[in-house]
Amino acid sequence: MTTPREDGRADDELRPIKITRGWLDHAAGSVLIEFGRTRVLCAASASEGVPRWRKGSGLGWVTAEYAMLPAATNTRSDRESVKGRIGGRTHEISRLIGRSLRAVIDYQALGENTIQLDCDVLQADGGTRTAAITGAYVALADAVAHLRSTGALPAKDAASPLTGSVAAVSVGIIDGVPRLDLPYVEDVRAETDMNIVMTGDGKFVEVQGTAEGAAFDRAELDALLALGEKGCADLTRLQQEALGR
Amino acid sequence: MTTPREDGRADDELRPIKITRGWLDHAAGSVLIEFGRTRVLCAASASEGVPRWRKGSGLGWVTAEYAMLPAATNTRSDRESVKGRIGGRTHEISRLIGRSLRAVIDYQALGENTIQLDCDVLQADGGTRTAAITGAYVALADAVAHLRSTGALPAKDAASPLTGSVAAVSVGIIDGVPRLDLPYVEDVRAETDMNIVMTGDGKFVEVQGTAEGAAFDRAELDALLALGEKGCADLTRLQQEALGR
Amino acid sequence: MTTPREDGRADDELRPIKITRGWLDHAAGSVLIEFGRTRVLCAASASEGVPRWRKGSGLGWVTAEYAMLPAATNTRSDRESVKGRIGGRTHEISRLIGRSLRAVIDYQALGENTIQLDCDVLQADGGTRTAAITGAYVALADAVAHLRSTGALPAKDAASPLTGSVAAVSVGIIDGVPRLDLPYVEDVRAETDMNIVMTGDGKFVEVQGTAEGAAFDRAELDALLALGEKGCADLTRLQQEALGR
Amino acid sequence: MTTPREDGRADDELRPIKITRGWLDHAAGSVLIEFGRTRVLCAASASEGVPRWRKGSGLGWVTAEYAMLPAATNTRSDRESVKGRIGGRTHEISRLIGRSLRAVIDYQALGENTIQLDCDVLQADGGTRTAAITGAYVALADAVAHLRSTGALPAKDAASPLTGSVAAVSVGIIDGVPRLDLPYVEDVRAETDMNIVMTGDGKFVEVQGTAEGAAFDRAELDALLALGEKGCADLTRLQQEALGR
Amino acid sequence: MTTPREDGRADDELRPIKITRGWLDHAAGSVLIEFGRTRVLCAASASEGVPRWRKGSGLGWVTAEYAMLPAATNTRSDRESVKGRIGGRTHEISRLIGRSLRAVIDYQALGENTIQLDCDVLQADGGTRTAAITGAYVALADAVAHLRSTGALPAKDAASPLTGSVAAVSVGIIDGVPRLDLPYVEDVRAETDMNIVMTGDGKFVEVQGTAEGAAFDRAELDALLALGEKGCADLTRLQQEALGR
Amino acid sequence: MTTPREDGRADDELRPIKITRGWLDHAAGSVLIEFGRTRVLCAASASEGVPRWRKGSGLGWVTAEYAMLPAATNTRSDRESVKGRIGGRTHEISRLIGRSLRAVIDYQALGENTIQLDCDVLQADGGTRTAAITGAYVALADAVAHLRSTGALPAKDAASPLTGSVAAVSVGIIDGVPRLDLPYVEDVRAETDMNIVMTGDGKFVEVQGTAEGAAFDRAELDALLALGEKGCADLTRLQQEALGR
Repeated sequence: MTTPREDGRADDELRPIKITRGWLDHAAGSVLIEFGRTRVLCAASASEGVPRWRKGSGLGWVTAEYAMLPAATNTRSDRESVKGRIGGRTHEISRLIGRSLRAVIDYQALGENTIQLDCDVLQADGGTRTAAITGAYVALADAVAHLRSTGALPAKDAASPLTGSVAAVSVGIIDGVPRLDLPYVEDVRAETDMNIVMTGDGKFVEVQGTAEGAAFDRAELDALLALGEKGCADLTRLQQEALGR
Repeated sequence: MTTPREDGRADDELRPIKITRGWLDHAAGSVLIEFGRTRVLCAASASEGVPRWRKGSGLGWVTAEYAMLPAATNTRSDRESVKGRIGGRTHEISRLIGRSLRAVIDYQALGENTIQLDCDVLQADGGTRTAAITGAYVALADAVAHLRSTGALPAKDAASPLTGSVAAVSVGIIDGVPRLDLPYVEDVRAETDMNIVMTGDGKFVEVQGTAEGAAFDRAELDALLALGEKGCADLTRLQQEALGR
Repeated sequence: MTTPREDGRADDELRPIKITRGWLDHAAGSVLIEFGRTRVLCAASASEGVPRWRKGSGLGWVTAEYAMLPAATNTRSDRESVKGRIGGRTHEISRLIGRSLRAVIDYQALGENTIQLDCDVLQADGGTRTAAITGAYVALADAVAHLRSTGALPAKDAASPLTGSVAAVSVGIIDGVPRLDLPYVEDVRAETDMNIVMTGDGKFVEVQGTAEGAAFDRAELDALLALGEKGCADLTRLQQEALGR
Repeated sequence: MTTPREDGRADDELRPIKITRGWLDHAAGSVLIEFGRTRVLCAASASEGVPRWRKGSGLGWVTAEYAMLPAATNTRSDRESVKGRIGGRTHEISRLIGRSLRAVIDYQALGENTIQLDCDVLQADGGTRTAAITGAYVALADAVAHLRSTGALPAKDAASPLTGSVAAVSVGIIDGVPRLDLPYVEDVRAETDMNIVMTGDGKFVEVQGTAEGAAFDRAELDALLALGEKGCADLTRLQQEALGR
Repeated sequence: MTTPREDGRADDELRPIKITRGWLDHAAGSVLIEFGRTRVLCAASASEGVPRWRKGSGLGWVTAEYAMLPAATNTRSDRESVKGRIGGRTHEISRLIGRSLRAVIDYQALGENTIQLDCDVLQADGGTRTAAITGAYVALADAVAHLRSTGALPAKDAASPLTGSVAAVSVGIIDGVPRLDLPYVEDVRAETDMNIVMTGDGKFVEVQGTAEGAAFDRAELDALLALGEKGCADLTRLQQEALGR
Repeated sequence: MTTPREDGRADDELRPIKITRGWLDHAAGSVLIEFGRTRVLCAASASEGVPRWRKGSGLGWVTAEYAMLPAATNTRSDRESVKGRIGGRTHEISRLIGRSLRAVIDYQALGENTIQLDCDVLQADGGTRTAAITGAYVALADAVAHLRSTGALPAKDAASPLTGSVAAVSVGIIDGVPRLDLPYVEDVRAETDMNIVMTGDGKFVEVQGTAEGAAFDRAELDALLALGEKGCADLTRLQQEALGR
């Protein structure tokens, strides 16, 4: 018999998810997303032109930066701007978010425009990178709609730069039990930890599994993948609802 | 005859001020403060010990860091962590906030503890530094109360580390007219721009006036000081209300 | 019908693997590992003591740094030392190598000692991170043996700090066909790219799959996992042979 | 009854001021300015063109950098070039000097040229930023005259890029007494410290007052402003004498 | 009577020198050079164009970067990329190598092309900078031949960009005896240490002598110069052999 | 027949040398040295203790930092503090000055004290590094005398930490003629350029010769060495006069 989760959720249940669109006045799209107590502000800013290595290609670009406010964590963490360098973890997550969003972008339809996603963690309680991806997609969708309405991007009847949706969730094995959407207290105890990024039509974009303690076997891997598929499907539905579709 | 303000305010009237306490779960004190559309998240984190140059003195320390999220401004600004260095403006404001708060701190009563204020601008529409100071004071007051209740600081009957309150406001001359609490559209047009930091009992902590265009004479300076005194008194009252006093 | 591989290999066949032990005179363990034309120099340096956050725990530490010589790639790349900052990709791979090796370390048996793995890519032709992990394990095994023989680590009859072996390989889908151990020409064409790190007894340490183009479905994921299991088993055998077991 | 000043000066008296023009051979204008033992080398270098954000505007630019030699202070301070970053204080003062000089510049008359002021403190004994501003103005005046004589700037009968002069002085309250032009020994003891920058015709460019200990009231502020007006008027006269007007 | 050398060499004898050409597949020229246990990988990469300050001159450029792998030395040294800055010694040697090679370059014949030499020390046992120069020349010669054969540089009958050859060796005084080509154990004991760079026709390019302990007199200087001339002549012969001339 | 020098000097004649002691109030020793229009401020600051790697050895340390003010050169150069990194040339010269001074230091007699030399070029007209060494020696001698008089170093009858004096001069071949102490106009035209550092009793500390254009032969080298010996002897006499010996 296994211990129930501290917050009373079923093993395959997401934390309460809240998606607030239009949280900022300036950005083309902005979302405050909450996975329980994890709170990430996702902003999508558009600009004409693309990075130098892409100029003249006719193709657009989407990139992302992830960061955490110093007081977001249990114990205050130092600012990377003050330290003068970006840490490895920050780099890694920024790259992951960028790759995840680019999986649903049609560069041709975007034209030589860049959309920059900023995902700033205001409060951290586990799963910040998956919340960031899930929220960033909604901000991106809003930005694309906004840019098409203003004529900055080709309008409604042309192909959309968005070819689908993307969402992400963490899964892990705690005391031998696979669980969905880990808060910090579960995250630190997990033997295996996996982040899964999927498109709205159920395909994988990223699968990143790490044995924190003992290595895991194929059966455990399969259980985690199934749980991730379930969680991403739930998040996809919540994204669609938030977008009023 | 002068043009009325775009937002319809009287020349000596503050924008709508909103102070939300306890916006974060982890920090000892935290406040989301809004001056109109300017939105700053102020968090106070306490830690035992003081910087090296102060060790063994029996005295505490209070310091502050100010930063702006990339999407806070009209046009996205680059992250200082990515650029690898803190800009001059950020340094200057961080130092100003720290000095302002230290003006109402009794280092002796604080003991060898450090309180770090983080003021992160989530959205910028002029007056971010004055909103930061005004909000940071409330976060600091909450942190001190919290630390005294947990015994981390000497309790209720001892002297409080807080010797008073502090608030700040911007004033400026636009088209020859002195005005209080400038939003961005007024700020960029101001001939003279002044930030005033005052204690709750009406004394000056900082006075920083800058001629953006033509230099200003003593009469103009006096008018701005009077306006600042009025604005700080109003903010002090709002801080006290927010703190339930 | 699919095109055969440019180098004539079967789809589930590794490139020629060469493991040269003792390539350096100073390091406790050192290996030049070659996956075809990919050539990585792996050195394991031991030092007494552990990082500050681990002091007094009685536990050891293993960490890794990955880097690429400027002329290792097709087109010369700039030095990160000259640029003054480590890039995101370098950070990410260094962290991956460190985690992978720590999966087979018994910190207790290591005592408060640190082993630092340096993986420097002398020539790059795809799969540098998997070659680095595979070679670093052999260097680590040599370093542990060396340290036990000199008395720097507890000797033969005590528990070994190594609880198993670890190897890594890349797999990917090219033109719809899953293939093992991708050289650069295949890597750039892969629709999906996955790095798999496994222990010698067939368990997973890391699974990192990325859709470079279209997202991938569960069947494709399963095929890649099977291929990775096969490749890691082959590499484990080659590691054991190189170590004379 | 108050204690007399250590150096015997009246409370409203400047230290001996010495302005040596043409101290360097290369710069368009250069001045060694001394406020007592404080010694600052101010050099004005002209170059064609303006920063990128100003190109094509037809307007010029004036900017400044302040720094201190390591041995300038009582105890040697580390070089910012060696530390790899500019400190907050340096940034703040550089920005102040630049703003102060720009207050007397007609950008139109300057054309798309940049004048860079370098203010290097060779010896520090309080008031380095005010000495820097006061000396930099003289170097700037010399540079403008030089550039007009060589035809690099429009000649004598056109409007001068200089619309006036600027000088600066520190004032403070020590043991309750307002005093002018504080040396280091007074500076560290001051309860309130203010830097005042004024044009030659008696208008304010910058007013920066800081309560170092207790906050100050309006009467004290007025006394300091009066003292600053007196000091700036004296410095303006000395600048004019040095320039042979 | 003096002690014989630890490795049995005569005082004017080089260590075993090994020059392996074509060690890398991508670089235009590459050499692994060994001076005893000192092992340096030298790669020459060519690119069209020259640094900005040289554009439009019709002249080429040759530059060099030197670095050491962390595990190259007896005790592991930290990576300069991780430290975020290049050390003084690295800078100095990179500049020396660049200057040495430019002494035998005809910029006109090179045209507006840049050749970048990367000298990475894989293992260090004294004399790494002289091995780097000696090996870099061979890599450079191979790169020039390669570029001429591909038409990237003017072909065989035009003037060669190489006007001669260059080699370098260290000499020093140990226990009063001048010796050639010092390994680490002699280097640390040397009273005087000199690096000599010469062209193939016996002229000096660089002479850098340093008194590590006592200053040296003119007679000692002359003895060291003679020894250096002998060593460079030997190395020139070995370079020519390696190049098959 | 050769052209005479622009400033009318004989080929073996120094520029006018001026050594002003005690130029700063705070440093233990300070000297403004002038080689013609080259002007370097040399300051020696003493502190108790030595760098970490030397602690407990009973030995002292002497180190140096060289820098150039932005306006020192013909065309303004950027600040290294603003660029955020020390350039290769600065590193190289700082190291040279440090080594040169350490050649006349008895570490034992210095005890565990550090003397830091700061050599800041106020105006540059060739030979800044040799002026820096020559002036730094005088500042160092003054600092040692001062420290012995205050008891910070062992007093008069103990062995002095200074075992001799050191001076430096540049020599070069211009239009085939060897010349002493090159100003900027000669320096840029020199075919060969050599810096020579010697002790007061005529021994070599450093010899650094570089072929800027064509390589140089042994006869030319001998002529330059003779000229350097003459120049250093002259400078030694001037140093002794300045020190009142």
